[in-house]
Amino acid sequence: MTTLSRLRAQISISLDGFVAGPHQSIDNPLGVGGTALHEWVVPLRTFQEQHGREGGEDNASTPFLESLLADIGATIMGRNMFGGHPGDWSHEEPWTGWWGPRPPFGHPVFVLTHFPREPLELEGTTFTFVTEGIERALEQARAAAGGADVALAGGAQAIRQYLAAGLVDELALNIVPVLLGSGERLFIGSGDDLRGLRVVESIATLAVTHLRFARD
Amino acid sequence: MTTLSRLRAQISISLDGFVAGPHQSIDNPLGVGGTALHEWVVPLRTFQEQHGREGGEDNASTPFLESLLADIGATIMGRNMFGGHPGDWSHEEPWTGWWGPRPPFGHPVFVLTHFPREPLELEGTTFTFVTEGIERALEQARAAAGGADVALAGGAQAIRQYLAAGLVDELALNIVPVLLGSGERLFIGSGDDLRGLRVVESIATLAVTHLRFARD
Repeated sequence: MTTLSRLRAQISISLDGFVAGPHQSIDNPLGVGGTALHEWVVPLRTFQEQHGREGGEDNASTPFLESLLADIGATIMGRNMFGGHPGDWSHEEPWTGWWGPRPPFGHPVFVLTHFPREPLELEGTTFTFVTEGIERALEQARAAAGGADVALAGGAQAIRQYLAAGLVDELALNIVPVLLGSGERLFIGSGDDLRGLRVVESIATLAVTHLRFARD
Repeated sequence: MTTLSRLRAQISISLDGFVAGPHQSIDNPLGVGGTALHEWVVPLRTFQEQHGREGGEDNASTPFLESLLADIGATIMGRNMFGGHPGDWSHEEPWTGWWGPRPPFGHPVFVLTHFPREPLELEGTTFTFVTEGIERALEQARAAAGGADVALAGGAQAIRQYLAAGLVDELALNIVPVLLGSGERLFIGSGDDLRGLRVVESIATLAVTHLRFARD
């Protein structure tokens, strides 16, 4: 008997509800001001290590970040998070994501997209492009995770789709005390229903508030 | 030489940015689901005492609530927070607010309104109705506060107006981990500018996250 691996989403969000600022583009995927949402994570030693770099600090966010990374066997992400113009996918040197030749995942990644593409094998990480919808992507990710959990890395649209389908088992929000004014909202059309998720952990620092939601 | 008293706003807000649910009305000023925003405060002994009742509990939110109430000499509120149909104000028994004969303020309260009305003296609290705008209300409240600070009790529109005018010295947000889906937003048209306010304190519980913003 196997326990079904959980789908664990996490995203950083501004005080006014945005996960990216206005004027998002391929060249500026976080939008104007959007980098402020990630200023809590970049200085952390755990983040730097994940990205193959040395240095960084430990602070009150460290245990939370480590818990987000723990026991993950596969990742699902939306097509915008993988990045690149769809046209680039068929070029001689197709887009290979933001992360260079050694992406910081180290496990299989499944990209939700409408554009078919052969799997992309990089050092430690293979990207598989799934055109058959979110449920099929989750099936494939669970199969690839080998009993571990599946991370839902974003963006907002992918998280909204999985939330709406009731498929998210855990949601971690990193609330950053800045205003972006406009941009891409996380909770749009979500109604007043957290789909059975309730807060099970909260950690506040001056830089970020971490809230973890899980099923009852 | 006197130190200018500070204007200190505080309000409770949902995870998706609403300070009241949809379908607000005179009879349901918090809108559908809006009472969830206040479930953290009602059980507190400090809140019960403020409202002339016994009992209640102390928890991690107690010091934050006490700090919100400390050193306040006058309160400003929007007209919807005072409540009542404007027509009721000229009746034989005019609307006297939500709070009964002994309101929980115990100091002068200034109500922003477009409808002139004579001051309303109740036990321990006099409501003064200010039709000359937010700056005049703040002048009057400061004069009445006798050197203490002025509380800006809400609602969202009043806080937005004072924020936009750069007049808020301290903003306390109580972020409640629920979704209201729609309703009245706090940060609408606020842009990406917190008007010189930055986080100086954060406290997280499972019921609410308290963030205090102050001037540099």
